[in-house]
Amino acid sequence: MSDLPPINFTRGVPAVESFPADKIIDASQAVLREHASIILQYGSAYGLRLLREWLASWHSVAVESVLCSNGSLNLIEFICSLLLHSENKTVFVEAPTYDRAVTRLYKHGAEIVSIPLQDDGPDIEILDAKLQQHQPSFFYTIPDFQNPAGTTCSHEKRIRLIELARQHGYIYLEDSPYRPLRYWGVEQPSLFEIAPDVVVQMSSFSKLIGPGTRMGYILGDVDLLAKVAKVAEDTYITPSLLSHGIVYEFCRAGHLQPQIDRLKTLYRPRLEAALASLDEHLPQAKFVRPDGGFFLSITLPRGVTTMDVRAHASRVNLNLADGRAFFVNGGGERFLRLPYCALTPEQIRVGISRLAEIVRRLQ
Amino acid sequence: MSDLPPINFTRGVPAVESFPADKIIDASQAVLREHASIILQYGSAYGLRLLREWLASWHSVAVESVLCSNGSLNLIEFICSLLLHSENKTVFVEAPTYDRAVTRLYKHGAEIVSIPLQDDGPDIEILDAKLQQHQPSFFYTIPDFQNPAGTTCSHEKRIRLIELARQHGYIYLEDSPYRPLRYWGVEQPSLFEIAPDVVVQMSSFSKLIGPGTRMGYILGDVDLLAKVAKVAEDTYITPSLLSHGIVYEFCRAGHLQPQIDRLKTLYRPRLEAALASLDEHLPQAKFVRPDGGFFLSITLPRGVTTMDVRAHASRVNLNLADGRAFFVNGGGERFLRLPYCALTPEQIRVGISRLAEIVRRLQ
Repeated sequence: MSDLPPINFTRGVPAVESFPADKIIDASQAVLREHASIILQYGSAYGLRLLREWLASWHSVAVESVLCSNGSLNLIEFICSLLLHSENKTVFVEAPTYDRAVTRLYKHGAEIVSIPLQDDGPDIEILDAKLQQHQPSFFYTIPDFQNPAGTTCSHEKRIRLIELARQHGYIYLEDSPYRPLRYWGVEQPSLFEIAPDVVVQMSSFSKLIGPGTRMGYILGDVDLLAKVAKVAEDTYITPSLLSHGIVYEFCRAGHLQPQIDRLKTLYRPRLEAALASLDEHLPQAKFVRPDGGFFLSITLPRGVTTMDVRAHASRVNLNLADGRAFFVNGGGERFLRLPYCALTPEQIRVGISRLAEIVRRLQ
Repeated sequence: MSDLPPINFTRGVPAVESFPADKIIDASQAVLREHASIILQYGSAYGLRLLREWLASWHSVAVESVLCSNGSLNLIEFICSLLLHSENKTVFVEAPTYDRAVTRLYKHGAEIVSIPLQDDGPDIEILDAKLQQHQPSFFYTIPDFQNPAGTTCSHEKRIRLIELARQHGYIYLEDSPYRPLRYWGVEQPSLFEIAPDVVVQMSSFSKLIGPGTRMGYILGDVDLLAKVAKVAEDTYITPSLLSHGIVYEFCRAGHLQPQIDRLKTLYRPRLEAALASLDEHLPQAKFVRPDGGFFLSITLPRGVTTMDVRAHASRVNLNLADGRAFFVNGGGERFLRLPYCALTPEQIRVGISRLAEIVRRLQ
């Protein structure tokens, strides 16, 4: 065993030093003083009304278009329960895509078709061709700072994606937990903002406040959300209103935007350190240059596999995730996801230099 | 429309005045000061370790035998996912039983066999006969202060139930959220305490602290719980650790037992008022005399249906639940569940006298 300090490029977890503990203490006191009889009781399966109203205002939608859950993965479960009950079990995803979403889709018997992801979003030519062969029930997509790739969908492609959905009669399940964390460049409208008629948008406060709050939410068509609420009620009666209340008060008190600004200040130098280290040490690899979020990804040079690199890396306490888990229909042998947010710039530099050393030896 | 003040004998919700808001404020401050980096982060699908350790000590089991979730209904979902995937989809329940559990069972394609409930627990003769015809995967039972009936299973029947499980090779899913709320009489050992090898026990703090915490938990076999944890992780990654943390600190600080004592002091007079009113106004109905919990139930006199009573009752702002929802294989036409905890003794007296008046008119 190596006695080098371990460096984990494995899970997409926030930095512990990012948690706004003091503000959460204030929020929990204030909301319990004001609303204990609501947040300690059973309530609506839509989640805490006060939080839904706040989110409705933040996103400029009607309150009936907002449903809050226990984390956003659970929402994928509910959407699958609703949309994959019919005969059409075809779901499109990006390749690569978020592995936990795929597990949910398979659990509901989805037949998954993957659309290769390019640096500016899904490969439209291949999507077009696949749509000649398949009629998806929905397309699960992460347009902003994609997990695991780090790419952001261009404005042109967003418009084209919407046209294709309208033409072929399917909807997008747009997953946007990283969207507010843009470190540079120009924000694109979300798919939901462009076309709320064919998009359901999910998001979460896991990356903005802390995963332990399990505050996921969904924006979408009022009738669809009423059905989601019924599935949610049958599953857990009411989501955690105590958590919802604390998150609500945190937002109401005006802490969310300063917290997002703090996160950008904390994470931006980490992404910069990662990109500079890759430029310096691994110029022979192809890597994505994200504009925000939690992840960047590398395609290793030809002849070098992630499996080989992982085996060598673990001997120097550099922990990496298997790239193949992100590819549903095969591939990913040379794919490497680097979650950089929970590491200091120094750890990132050391980790990437260890990685580069291994790659060089394997080439 | 009547202008009488409404009286709701509908849902089993706790009294708002029972919520220990001040202690929850203290607990949320203390736990966030001490453990923010754990409870705001991702963590184990088993739930917060600190809370599991506390519960393990409370129940005298190993910490590996405790899993905490978001409310206990969700745990029924996980158990169904695990146990009803095989060819054997037969599940036994009591008649009547908790309607939300039934919804979960049906969602997983269960073939449900109901065993009539007597004042001292399931009808053992019928259970014996049904076990000649069916091999259940599990038997969902609420031995203490049953929802909706209010009955408690006798010690003799508990022993017999365990014998039958061992003989026929099935397990019990024992649902015990009301168990600590005994207002009089002698506590019986839980099925899990008698035979942890053939019992998985669920419980919740919804009725002890507040439903908004969504803190349900399960005690059981270490290997089974490892599988439950995998299903939980695939569903929501981590339960709400923020909620778990607050509940943990509330318990650690010694607030749980005084809170349970407070609840007994609050609810016992409500049950007494209900029983006295029924004795006085509805002696012609058969009703259960519970020793604790949230519910009592009435079988209306012959010729009077719950449906008719409900229709008349709603005109005098007395709101009652349909009894048939609690009976899976038919029946319940004269069954009425009275949740008494969220009503004052005065409201209970007024409500039962309105009810008695309607029954008399319909007889």
